[in-house]
Amino acid sequence: MSRILIRGGTVVSATGSQPLDVLIDGETIVAVLQPGATALGDVAASAQIIEATGKYVIPGGVDAHTHMQLPFGGTEASDTFETGTRAAAWGGTTTIVDFAVQKPGETVQDTLALWHDKAAGRCAVDYGFHQIVGDVNPESLKGMAELVAEGVTSFKLFMAYPGVFYSDDGRILRAMQRSAELGALLMMHAENGIAIDVLVEQSLQRGDTAPYFHGTSRPWQLEEEATHRAIMLAQVTGAPLYVVHVSAKQALEQIATARGNGQNVFGETCPQYLYLSLEEQLGAPGFEGAKWVCSTPLRSRAEGHQDELWRYIRTGDVTSVATDHCPFCMKDQKELGRGDFSKIPNGIGGVEHRMDLMFQGVKDGRISLERWVDVCCTTPARMFGMYPRKGVIAPGADADIVLYDPNGHTSIGVGKTHHMNMDHSAYEGFEVDGHVDTVLSRGRVIVDDGAYLGRAGHGRFVKRELSQNLI
Amino acid sequence: MSRILIRGGTVVSATGSQPLDVLIDGETIVAVLQPGATALGDVAASAQIIEATGKYVIPGGVDAHTHMQLPFGGTEASDTFETGTRAAAWGGTTTIVDFAVQKPGETVQDTLALWHDKAAGRCAVDYGFHQIVGDVNPESLKGMAELVAEGVTSFKLFMAYPGVFYSDDGRILRAMQRSAELGALLMMHAENGIAIDVLVEQSLQRGDTAPYFHGTSRPWQLEEEATHRAIMLAQVTGAPLYVVHVSAKQALEQIATARGNGQNVFGETCPQYLYLSLEEQLGAPGFEGAKWVCSTPLRSRAEGHQDELWRYIRTGDVTSVATDHCPFCMKDQKELGRGDFSKIPNGIGGVEHRMDLMFQGVKDGRISLERWVDVCCTTPARMFGMYPRKGVIAPGADADIVLYDPNGHTSIGVGKTHHMNMDHSAYEGFEVDGHVDTVLSRGRVIVDDGAYLGRAGHGRFVKRELSQNLI
Amino acid sequence: MSRILIRGGTVVSATGSQPLDVLIDGETIVAVLQPGATALGDVAASAQIIEATGKYVIPGGVDAHTHMQLPFGGTEASDTFETGTRAAAWGGTTTIVDFAVQKPGETVQDTLALWHDKAAGRCAVDYGFHQIVGDVNPESLKGMAELVAEGVTSFKLFMAYPGVFYSDDGRILRAMQRSAELGALLMMHAENGIAIDVLVEQSLQRGDTAPYFHGTSRPWQLEEEATHRAIMLAQVTGAPLYVVHVSAKQALEQIATARGNGQNVFGETCPQYLYLSLEEQLGAPGFEGAKWVCSTPLRSRAEGHQDELWRYIRTGDVTSVATDHCPFCMKDQKELGRGDFSKIPNGIGGVEHRMDLMFQGVKDGRISLERWVDVCCTTPARMFGMYPRKGVIAPGADADIVLYDPNGHTSIGVGKTHHMNMDHSAYEGFEVDGHVDTVLSRGRVIVDDGAYLGRAGHGRFVKRELSQNLI
Amino acid sequence: MSRILIRGGTVVSATGSQPLDVLIDGETIVAVLQPGATALGDVAASAQIIEATGKYVIPGGVDAHTHMQLPFGGTEASDTFETGTRAAAWGGTTTIVDFAVQKPGETVQDTLALWHDKAAGRCAVDYGFHQIVGDVNPESLKGMAELVAEGVTSFKLFMAYPGVFYSDDGRILRAMQRSAELGALLMMHAENGIAIDVLVEQSLQRGDTAPYFHGTSRPWQLEEEATHRAIMLAQVTGAPLYVVHVSAKQALEQIATARGNGQNVFGETCPQYLYLSLEEQLGAPGFEGAKWVCSTPLRSRAEGHQDELWRYIRTGDVTSVATDHCPFCMKDQKELGRGDFSKIPNGIGGVEHRMDLMFQGVKDGRISLERWVDVCCTTPARMFGMYPRKGVIAPGADADIVLYDPNGHTSIGVGKTHHMNMDHSAYEGFEVDGHVDTVLSRGRVIVDDGAYLGRAGHGRFVKRELSQNLI
Repeated sequence: MSRILIRGGTVVSATGSQPLDVLIDGETIVAVLQPGATALGDVAASAQIIEATGKYVIPGGVDAHTHMQLPFGGTEASDTFETGTRAAAWGGTTTIVDFAVQKPGETVQDTLALWHDKAAGRCAVDYGFHQIVGDVNPESLKGMAELVAEGVTSFKLFMAYPGVFYSDDGRILRAMQRSAELGALLMMHAENGIAIDVLVEQSLQRGDTAPYFHGTSRPWQLEEEATHRAIMLAQVTGAPLYVVHVSAKQALEQIATARGNGQNVFGETCPQYLYLSLEEQLGAPGFEGAKWVCSTPLRSRAEGHQDELWRYIRTGDVTSVATDHCPFCMKDQKELGRGDFSKIPNGIGGVEHRMDLMFQGVKDGRISLERWVDVCCTTPARMFGMYPRKGVIAPGADADIVLYDPNGHTSIGVGKTHHMNMDHSAYEGFEVDGHVDTVLSRGRVIVDDGAYLGRAGHGRFVKRELSQNLI
Repeated sequence: MSRILIRGGTVVSATGSQPLDVLIDGETIVAVLQPGATALGDVAASAQIIEATGKYVIPGGVDAHTHMQLPFGGTEASDTFETGTRAAAWGGTTTIVDFAVQKPGETVQDTLALWHDKAAGRCAVDYGFHQIVGDVNPESLKGMAELVAEGVTSFKLFMAYPGVFYSDDGRILRAMQRSAELGALLMMHAENGIAIDVLVEQSLQRGDTAPYFHGTSRPWQLEEEATHRAIMLAQVTGAPLYVVHVSAKQALEQIATARGNGQNVFGETCPQYLYLSLEEQLGAPGFEGAKWVCSTPLRSRAEGHQDELWRYIRTGDVTSVATDHCPFCMKDQKELGRGDFSKIPNGIGGVEHRMDLMFQGVKDGRISLERWVDVCCTTPARMFGMYPRKGVIAPGADADIVLYDPNGHTSIGVGKTHHMNMDHSAYEGFEVDGHVDTVLSRGRVIVDDGAYLGRAGHGRFVKRELSQNLI
Repeated sequence: MSRILIRGGTVVSATGSQPLDVLIDGETIVAVLQPGATALGDVAASAQIIEATGKYVIPGGVDAHTHMQLPFGGTEASDTFETGTRAAAWGGTTTIVDFAVQKPGETVQDTLALWHDKAAGRCAVDYGFHQIVGDVNPESLKGMAELVAEGVTSFKLFMAYPGVFYSDDGRILRAMQRSAELGALLMMHAENGIAIDVLVEQSLQRGDTAPYFHGTSRPWQLEEEATHRAIMLAQVTGAPLYVVHVSAKQALEQIATARGNGQNVFGETCPQYLYLSLEEQLGAPGFEGAKWVCSTPLRSRAEGHQDELWRYIRTGDVTSVATDHCPFCMKDQKELGRGDFSKIPNGIGGVEHRMDLMFQGVKDGRISLERWVDVCCTTPARMFGMYPRKGVIAPGADADIVLYDPNGHTSIGVGKTHHMNMDHSAYEGFEVDGHVDTVLSRGRVIVDDGAYLGRAGHGRFVKRELSQNLI
Repeated sequence: MSRILIRGGTVVSATGSQPLDVLIDGETIVAVLQPGATALGDVAASAQIIEATGKYVIPGGVDAHTHMQLPFGGTEASDTFETGTRAAAWGGTTTIVDFAVQKPGETVQDTLALWHDKAAGRCAVDYGFHQIVGDVNPESLKGMAELVAEGVTSFKLFMAYPGVFYSDDGRILRAMQRSAELGALLMMHAENGIAIDVLVEQSLQRGDTAPYFHGTSRPWQLEEEATHRAIMLAQVTGAPLYVVHVSAKQALEQIATARGNGQNVFGETCPQYLYLSLEEQLGAPGFEGAKWVCSTPLRSRAEGHQDELWRYIRTGDVTSVATDHCPFCMKDQKELGRGDFSKIPNGIGGVEHRMDLMFQGVKDGRISLERWVDVCCTTPARMFGMYPRKGVIAPGADADIVLYDPNGHTSIGVGKTHHMNMDHSAYEGFEVDGHVDTVLSRGRVIVDDGAYLGRAGHGRFVKRELSQNLI
């Protein structure tokens, strides 16, 4: 018997919530039912029952920004596709979109193939790929069409990291023109890396080498600037633009303005930018701040970025919340940058905690229940062409479902609820007023009542359509 | 047998569209099903089948702004609740929210009761009420709580029409304070009526008495001004604000700015402001322009209001599209203002055409299919506390459903598809590339294949909750 | 011998400063000379010499907003034209523009005549009049032309004080239309008095009767709102608009936006809004705060209005700085409002300290030396049609000149440097790093080295032209 | 006898105009006198009289942006310092500030010396230098201090022209940091040259090679973008920023916003951007458009840039008007780009016509008389540290004076009033309602009544102070 009936819960969508039963057959939702309706006979009779009374029944989380086992900064992100997607599952995220990385001299096709190899047979939940175009040349531009046909419909460029991922404005322009032609989404890491490298060099020369100075050498102006530049280049070319991991309120103001003008510009932020700050985390004593070295950097709480970002989620100018999951251990990894913050691998791990941390925003009155589901599940799915297969509780959709207990509790921290391959937690000590009780991926219960029931290889590649979120 | 299965269509929601079957039992949707799913047995066997292949299956339209048989300008709007709701049904609108009118010396409770009397037993589709508070006094403020308890959760004030509906800023402030306490929505007709009356008087004195001068004596600045004023008063009081029938792009810019700041401010526009203009309609030869005398007035196409309003629908700054249906015949009604535009009864009839006219926006590439459903059905329902009973295709919802044929055609005009009680059409000659094929109201087919199958009295009063659209 | 040579000083203008000698003949500056130039022979030989070495030589201050002996709040402002203009002279202000007040039932001509009577023969320095139009009717509108011909070229209306000075938007519109026709400046007290009166009543009802609640019942939103409204009405009519005593940063943002759009809109602020605050002064213990009850009210320092106002002076969006000098003693006057802040006469006295307080802004690095002269002397003179007779050191100009010692010192306070007819000082205890050493009015030294040498009746009425500051 | 009395004219300053006589002794203004004043005896007796009745007496024009004999685009600008400054004199401009050009491998000191050599002994009017820093390296940064000490207090960088003048953002950052330290002004050519080069290449590949496509391959977005970027880099460093030759209204909006925020950002525009357009001039038939190939390019009149630029002059957001005089003949020079617009030397000659063209703006009601003098004379002098030696009629100032006849007439065109070394005029056929009658440079009449009386070598280098226009 492959039928499951989730009964008695409150289904939450991006537009509202209501009591509904959900019937799954195999990997797919086949019906959504009025509770107690008898028109279809005794549905429960022939199905496994999952009781959801008092729980929210929501679409599985979609984390559109992860970097499993990313080679970066002379080391490699510490979560493999296996460990990372398992942690995602624990946290109620049932789809990730990771980044295949092209470096100069490689083809986009080859690197995508390489990433397919890394992920295939190892993932606990479904996964898709974006393609980082690290070498914008005629070959790459041509290859983009091939990738779109294969379900990789979004391409990421970097205005930061000169000599590594960096593209200059001419390359950006060409890649955007190509994106516009293909209808594909152009994703941007928007920081002025050329100027930042000067500030970094000067900071180190002054002896300001601690993790804190990672933040001060990447001032908000250089994020705001790059964001504006990307928006203007996108306007020249007609490319839809998705700005990743926005942390500066001023950068979001640029995005909001462009959106108000009717341009297809979208902003993503991450829980770290909503909860953590330059002063408290990056400025922690000694080398402790290294845990929170990521780019864009954590911003000053005194300047009020965090509160403003929450506001931008409410107003819709933040389109979606992802994690930019890119974990590095302190030992042997973050430690590479002792005495020189520029050598600290950039990244924070958080794929496990996004659904909880954002639900805390509901509890704190920051966002509505609907907006929680919207920015964590529905809009990321639409944004990246996976709707209605992902991101919604509806017949025909994959049965990726989370039962979330609004009266449960989650204590974040190593040794508590920590399944990422990291020797620390960026959110150590955080207490969340809610709990991921049960997680289904394509009809299979993979987490339930504190037990992991999934397996490596259950997760499949998601061939994505073009974005369904353009205006 | 009271079960109906709508089969083979594409269900469109505010977030996307997908092939789904919809099962109705009695007045209610009881299940949404994957087409062809067999998990529930042969659902079709025991249900009446409505074939929807090639059609959009959408929630019945919600028109949150109508004025049936409104006493105004020395006459009365020409549609009764009976004729008006029947026309609504023809056009795919299955819920209206009309306005009960309190005048000085009356109580809000009594006037609401009066409007209940007018509507009860006469409506073809479901209906709710907003309450116009024409006399903000302690009694009225007290009465507002009673109305909220009875499902009338939105209150409208006027900054225009001194001596008729007008409230001064002190009264507005008090009513907004009360709204904020109650959690009720404050609706505003935002035009500076005091200043407008001077311009009207001066226009008439100059001999500028034709309908065209109705428009010129209500310049956009005086709509923008009042909109800004309402926003500021709302900010002082904490009241959520819904600005009705916005026609000036600058007024919408004020709304957009407030929304960007995170204030609960919402903008409504109407098809007339999207399609018609000061120059073409109000400026028609002779007295013809009288047909389009309404307030706020049609705006100049040269100034580009119409295109900008479409943009604001795309960006979400227009929350919902209603009709402000307030029909008057030329004969005996509009004619009262021959030689003095200020005596022309203000109003345009359009309750029948909203779904079609807005669908044309989809065909013209102005808005997406999802946004069509969103601004015409889902958000109005949420805005006015009727979700998920109205505005969505989901189990538990009222079976208010429209089968819309995107390949059909509708010719608007008297003698063609005109069921409103008017001797002319504001949209005479408009051709729409789509067609309302079948309309269900609470499970009953009331329009089908060009036939009206409904009846007066089928429609019931909808007791509304507080707004579900606040941020 | 009626010639005076001011020798050795640095003349400061709105565009720069340089060493220059100034030759006065009678009441007029007749030459400005390169120091030590011999081309004109020994100019010093036949002139009285005033040594100005180390001093700034600046145009006499122009305070375009005073209310001498204003009947208001059941009492009368405590400075007569005699005491008030003498205090002005002490402080380096050699021209005031006061307000004649029309009340309902009076004509503008009669009330202007009354004010002429009050001032004639009593002033220590020159004076002009604005006309308050308290009763906008056809007679008043007609009278405005007469006043313009007589050198009263600016008219003030109130959006505050219903039942006293208040004009509704229709009257404002008519007066603005008339101003536009005449080319006259329309001055506005921009606060939404209708809404404020409700808040005041509610505050008193709650028992919040102390002076502090004067401030809280006039929130910035109601200043911003009225400012925006005035701007829009001005835009409809084409009238140039001058918003008096702006205290809210958001109101100035509205003005800045209008100015950026090229509209003739001007903002005035006053030293009290730059230095004093809601928390510190209005919130002083007991009834002490009454000293600072004025409208618009002092604003919250926590909200940062003061710093923003200084910025707007730098950027030019504040056109000029006046005092709104309207003094009331605590005894018998301010005391009328014990137990009911709404009965405290509104007003702060400061005509004596403007030049010093603004110079402190130069010392504090808030504004440049040139901007000091510009906002205190030159632009007020241009704004109100007195240039180049006033506001500039140039041949042909009235010899209204101040020698200001940037190394001097001024201690503000009763019993120290206090010549206003008030039993307290709004700036008690302020220390200023500069000093008004010598003041000339039309060629006559009226203050010198701590001695008052002027006389009542020296000051003459200034017949003003239309504004010279329009764009 | 070296004394001159300019008698009977109306002296115009940035703040107003009034009848004044001006006495010159040698090279310097020594007195400004009330007309007819007798206090100084008969001044006229011992002076040469220049009658100015009916004329405006204004400070000599200051053109802060010229490129005499600039090596560029494989050729050299066709005006030498001799011919160019003579043309300037004809047009009432008595000071130019030209650009010394450092290229990679050269030092700023050497290149400045080279430009000194080019100019010395050849100029008709006074001249200063800005330094183009084409190679931002430690040596150049060090050299900047030396230049400041020698009176070259402004440094120009290019965001356009990769491989020629271009600096990347890191170099810009370093140069701005240095400027901030020195208090020197950073001038910026703000166009995204990297992106533009791609568009140019693509345009040529498409066969769009005519002059018109010079404009279309430099869209306004790429000027707006670079302007915003420069502003942000300036904000990071604290450098005052002067954006040269702004032609896009959106770029000016960026500047206006920064100025409103209190940042030291200044915008310059040129007559060509106020009068000429993409459609009319660049789009002229055949190769004719080459005459108007300059960068930033002429903008579209349909988009309304020209009108908006005039507005920004009125509002003060355009700080000054210069010419960017960079003349090339059609023959042998512009012709290099036949069949490839990218090979057309960039530049328009206009040093002769600025004062006239801007006066036409006064006649047309675009700007006030005062603003004319302000943007053409006073503010450029203050901006670049030459005040009060230049830019003002005041004792102590250089006697650089223009007698301008507001009732005169000037026909622009080759063979009419054309003294620049060009075989065509960018303003051929323009008729101006005013005329430069007499021009004095440092007390010497160099143009009078249609005769040139100057001489090469009269003009001297002006050692400039730091900017006097910062806020």
